[in-house]
Amino acid sequence: MLRGVDLDLSASAGELTARLVDIESVSGSEGPLADAIESALGECGHLSVVRDGNSIVARTDLGRARRVVLAGHIDTVPVADNLPSKVDQGNLFGCGTSDMKSGVAVQLKLAADVSAPVMDVTYVWYDCEEVETERNGLLRLSKNMPASLAGDFAILLEPTGGVVEGGCQGTLRAEIQAEGERAHSARAWMGNNAIHEAAEILYRLRNYEPRQPQVDGLSFREGLNAVGIRGGVAGNVIPDVCVVTVNYRFAPDRSADEAADHIRALFDGWQVRITDAAGGARPGLHSAAAASFVAAIGGTPRAKLGWTDVARFDALGIPAVNYGPGDPSVAHSRGEHVSLDAITECESRMRSWLAAS
Amino acid sequence: MLRGVDLDLSASAGELTARLVDIESVSGSEGPLADAIESALGECGHLSVVRDGNSIVARTDLGRARRVVLAGHIDTVPVADNLPSKVDQGNLFGCGTSDMKSGVAVQLKLAADVSAPVMDVTYVWYDCEEVETERNGLLRLSKNMPASLAGDFAILLEPTGGVVEGGCQGTLRAEIQAEGERAHSARAWMGNNAIHEAAEILYRLRNYEPRQPQVDGLSFREGLNAVGIRGGVAGNVIPDVCVVTVNYRFAPDRSADEAADHIRALFDGWQVRITDAAGGARPGLHSAAAASFVAAIGGTPRAKLGWTDVARFDALGIPAVNYGPGDPSVAHSRGEHVSLDAITECESRMRSWLAAS
Repeated sequence: MLRGVDLDLSASAGELTARLVDIESVSGSEGPLADAIESALGECGHLSVVRDGNSIVARTDLGRARRVVLAGHIDTVPVADNLPSKVDQGNLFGCGTSDMKSGVAVQLKLAADVSAPVMDVTYVWYDCEEVETERNGLLRLSKNMPASLAGDFAILLEPTGGVVEGGCQGTLRAEIQAEGERAHSARAWMGNNAIHEAAEILYRLRNYEPRQPQVDGLSFREGLNAVGIRGGVAGNVIPDVCVVTVNYRFAPDRSADEAADHIRALFDGWQVRITDAAGGARPGLHSAAAASFVAAIGGTPRAKLGWTDVARFDALGIPAVNYGPGDPSVAHSRGEHVSLDAITECESRMRSWLAAS
Repeated sequence: MLRGVDLDLSASAGELTARLVDIESVSGSEGPLADAIESALGECGHLSVVRDGNSIVARTDLGRARRVVLAGHIDTVPVADNLPSKVDQGNLFGCGTSDMKSGVAVQLKLAADVSAPVMDVTYVWYDCEEVETERNGLLRLSKNMPASLAGDFAILLEPTGGVVEGGCQGTLRAEIQAEGERAHSARAWMGNNAIHEAAEILYRLRNYEPRQPQVDGLSFREGLNAVGIRGGVAGNVIPDVCVVTVNYRFAPDRSADEAADHIRALFDGWQVRITDAAGGARPGLHSAAAASFVAAIGGTPRAKLGWTDVARFDALGIPAVNYGPGDPSVAHSRGEHVSLDAITECESRMRSWLAAS
């Protein structure tokens, strides 16, 4: 029986997911859940455990030739009247079931049970993934104790519907500014309308042909879009400035700097200000560890199009993929849920991989 | 000598302008100035005077064949550290000198002195011209006592640099809405970008050829411009709505309804919402009263391109022109001023017109 905030790691992965979900851990309030995880891992003599804030790293140190990193965040978006968890027709409902306490439960089951994996394993549970980057626990670990994240290959157990999703695309935002000259709108010819000038920016976006490159055998698909536009001074003034905010999602064969150069070249002649940029991650599926993982999981890997924390591993020189039992399409929704069978399958496949040669 | 808020109508028009300027009358605070005008006019036995709020109407009733209306507003924009007035090198500086207490001074001089004009004259001084339409004193008079504004021809003594400006253009604002479908920007092809769709709206505006029609012998010049644009949900969302606010300045041969139809036709296929529209005013320079006025003032009349209260006279069926001593380009500025010679010339020409056949 569970008492207080104890975690029973001998429970099934599905039961453990429910227990994790019921320990509310909205970003910034992960303390009780981190305590419970740290305490439960303390019973596992084959692991060395360290903690940094509300992030926890547990490692085997068996002197294996290769080391893999299994990582997951323990925070959730704000609860949407969907706690405590409940089971209905084979699905577990509740905040964080899909994104990503089911993945965290699989990590914990493997950590507790697989005491002699064929590769050394580093388990990482981190805080504040669902909020602004500066608070991200994985970023903090990469600064405070980068050696703790070292490995040949990393798996982020984010929801992927049970499919291996390789790498991720990068994302860049820029402001493209058209300029003109103010005038009273009753005498428009005295000025130059910046909003009219922005027509050409929008046409370039509309006619842009995004690349769909193959990277390490996976098909990526880029996109370049206006995500905002603003201009206007008053109802009787010809505006002198119009700013189009664009979001460029770029494949991981291009660095963030190369992506910025591409945008500057495309909008040559306008003021271009890069407001934020984060490089993607190559899938790295050609590495031996990745290949054995993909073979164990089965199915056909696909490219991850959204940016995820796998990019942080890529930045550390570690190839990384996303693979988890949750369904990404229900993440962050009031009706968030996960299939109990999907959790069992994920656990089973990963256990086979870690246990077999 | 001036005492309290008394006005000495025997002073020169320039001196009187200075006195009017020094009685601060920002929109909504015209009471003391209206009191002073009403009191001063009470001395003029040839005028009947009525008051509505802070607006005053004074009339001669000599049974003349024609009646002209001379109108001006007595409020100003907020003071910009430019009171009290001061004279420098033949110019009077201060808030309201150009717009339009110099015109008000000319009205007062004519009202007091020309006791037997060749046409009957209605003098109108009204409040709240510099603020939102609902508070406009001339609009209120046209509702509360429309008969008091009746006449064959009207002159608004707004600043025109001493040139007769005929009629005015109308103004219409509309929101043109492009629509799309939201999606995550990492998977842009699942949606439809409304900002990209707006490119065509901007191109139509950019390529629009404004009319320059002749109306009653004057050249007008239309304009159609974006004065605002907005769109965007978040930095990672394909936006489903983009709204372009346009301002159409149209010549007075077109009614506000016709202008709205023109905009709807031009942007056929998009949602068009007319947010406000005010018809212009035909110059009406062919009327006998107007022709005699133009002959007396001299110079070549031109079209008024900005919307002014002459449109309210047009709506009452009264042809109207703008003519005043101020320089419109310095109106509303900290350095607002008026040439003392221009005030004298305006007064002199109008006096000749009213006194001669």
